[in-house]
Amino acid sequence: MRVVVPFAVGEPKSRLAPALGADERAAFARASLEDVLEAVRAAGGEPTVLATADPRVDAETVVDERSLTAAVNAAIADAGPPVAVVMADLALATGEAVTELLAADGEVVLVPGRGGGTNAIVVRHPEFRVDYHGASYRDHLAIAREIGADVGTVDSYRLSTDVDEPADLVEVLLHGRSRSQAVLEDAGFVLDVDDGRVRAGREGRERA
Amino acid sequence: MRVVVPFAVGEPKSRLAPALGADERAAFARASLEDVLEAVRAAGGEPTVLATADPRVDAETVVDERSLTAAVNAAIADAGPPVAVVMADLALATGEAVTELLAADGEVVLVPGRGGGTNAIVVRHPEFRVDYHGASYRDHLAIAREIGADVGTVDSYRLSTDVDEPADLVEVLLHGRSRSQAVLEDAGFVLDVDDGRVRAGREGRERA
Repeated sequence: MRVVVPFAVGEPKSRLAPALGADERAAFARASLEDVLEAVRAAGGEPTVLATADPRVDAETVVDERSLTAAVNAAIADAGPPVAVVMADLALATGEAVTELLAADGEVVLVPGRGGGTNAIVVRHPEFRVDYHGASYRDHLAIAREIGADVGTVDSYRLSTDVDEPADLVEVLLHGRSRSQAVLEDAGFVLDVDDGRVRAGREGRERA
Repeated sequence: MRVVVPFAVGEPKSRLAPALGADERAAFARASLEDVLEAVRAAGGEPTVLATADPRVDAETVVDERSLTAAVNAAIADAGPPVAVVMADLALATGEAVTELLAADGEVVLVPGRGGGTNAIVVRHPEFRVDYHGASYRDHLAIAREIGADVGTVDSYRLSTDVDEPADLVEVLLHGRSRSQAVLEDAGFVLDVDDGRVRAGREGRERA
């Protein structure tokens, strides 16, 4: 199945700024993208990176400077069903988890992201279109209902964990895939247990 | 399978205090416990509530005032393998997710919790004991390795989501089970979309 992986080039994840510098955020975003591409390929998916500029990555690439919603809808229309969309910041994604996604029943299959978002979608219904504004998981359920599509969901901690806040770095240190985890370890991050809570911190620096 | 569900009576979850008053936290903790018991029963499990005082709940109950680790280890030794431990604050747990847990392969089956914890365990090895201090997921992996137990894991967003911080309330509003969700809705919580982030808030009050 064609799997569209949206990736914002040159817009490092600003919500990680309390924990990572701009170069580190860019390196982490790229490592996460490459981990996701590996998981997609391991699941037998054919990835297309849908990027805002040339991502210089070893994969089929489409450049589209428009908003995430507009670009993904164009990519869905272009590929035609079945087609999947998997976010590039799922640094815990494994081939096994993506296999489960691509095999899940439903004319529209949704994977919720923490915080109300949608981390992955499989589209088998010709009328389904995405809308990533606001609480997109709820909106995608409503869109599927409007067009009469059967909805499936996938219950996966790995696919529901998008990494965009400092607290998420704990998950990457414990359960992340090789490249994403290596970027954090090379940057000096270790697990820091304090007062019953676990955080990702760097020695001699403020905890994230 | 016997499923031990630890529950702290009269110690409402203090990390939810920025969002919920003490009575609301107690009501939410109880609703979450009852949702978990329902999910365990739907999966064919036989729940035992392991409580710090009489929980006045319609389920088999053992009262043990000791620490979580000491009480759970006594309960595991008492039940003997196979036995499972499922936390009471998994307000998103479904019968389907618990079924997957109880059926998972492994002499020790672990479900990570967000933030380094362990949300659920299946014990089929006679020497395994828990240790909930610190980053327990990593510690439980190490304990299993020491005793030579085969380790399985379950990749479930529902079981990995323990509700103990205000940010987690978004997950309950979107994906929570009936009683837990009702407590928040009755308290006036709604999804609040602002600046691309989704939060659980109450009208006319500070956002959680």
